[in-house]
Amino acid sequence: MSSPATDLALFDQIKWTADGLVAAIVQDSENDQVLMLAWMDRPAIINTLATGQTHFYSRSRKSSWHKGGTSGHVQYVESIRVDCDGDVLLIRARQVGGACHEGYRTCFFREVTADGSLHIIATPVFDAEGVYGETKARTSLPETTSGE
Amino acid sequence: MSSPATDLALFDQIKWTADGLVAAIVQDSENDQVLMLAWMDRPAIINTLATGQTHFYSRSRKSSWHKGGTSGHVQYVESIRVDCDGDVLLIRARQVGGACHEGYRTCFFREVTADGSLHIIATPVFDAEGVYGETKARTSLPETTSGE
Repeated sequence: MSSPATDLALFDQIKWTADGLVAAIVQDSENDQVLMLAWMDRPAIINTLATGQTHFYSRSRKSSWHKGGTSGHVQYVESIRVDCDGDVLLIRARQVGGACHEGYRTCFFREVTADGSLHIIATPVFDAEGVYGETKARTSLPETTSGE
Repeated sequence: MSSPATDLALFDQIKWTADGLVAAIVQDSENDQVLMLAWMDRPAIINTLATGQTHFYSRSRKSSWHKGGTSGHVQYVESIRVDCDGDVLLIRARQVGGACHEGYRTCFFREVTADGSLHIIATPVFDAEGVYGETKARTSLPETTSGE
């Protein structure tokens, strides 16, 4: 993924949402953990292909973002796959630090127990407050969609 | 996942779409491949927890479906995780046969090349026409969202 791609062929294969987005799953290429899911628009895909690092579109902020732009926790893309009906991308990437703004390696750090509640199954790999400058108290749903 | 869960606690942690859905990634618990992404509504989650096999909600057909109900290619749930902001589930499951209605183990059987086009990187693990009774010609975007 070191050179810009002619992406028209790919864009014709993607089934975009009404907002011009496609879902993108990021999987850790080193240990196969599923790290996160975020959304991409056409510019985000172009930037991802051009730089070799993931870029997304934030629906809450209505703007593009370079994953790791603030934290340094970039994702170096190793491959991009598309599912059978073109509405989901699977990106395998080497993750620097952690993917989650709450300080975890993966965003999927809570597991459903037999009684239907959630409990945390991982330990943070970095200090979210130190990186992002605010406390992420795990008492309620956070307002941001993902970390930068 | 052998007994029904009291799921109110979980439902309060999920950030549902306007249509009452949540995205669900399915990952192969045996080899960590990401198999597919589909959508679940509350009944689908309840059925999944109750039976230990994945159930989804088809947005195109506007109805619930039991994955593998037609093909026998069920997914035995081993764990369900929730991401940091509650809008994506990660389900690790043991997949029988293949997840994709086109005959592949995973729906992510096409990879983006350097020139931005897609090429198929896997071989089918079952005969889709034999199972589903129709030809799935890989010449254009299929109309269905996922296989049963």
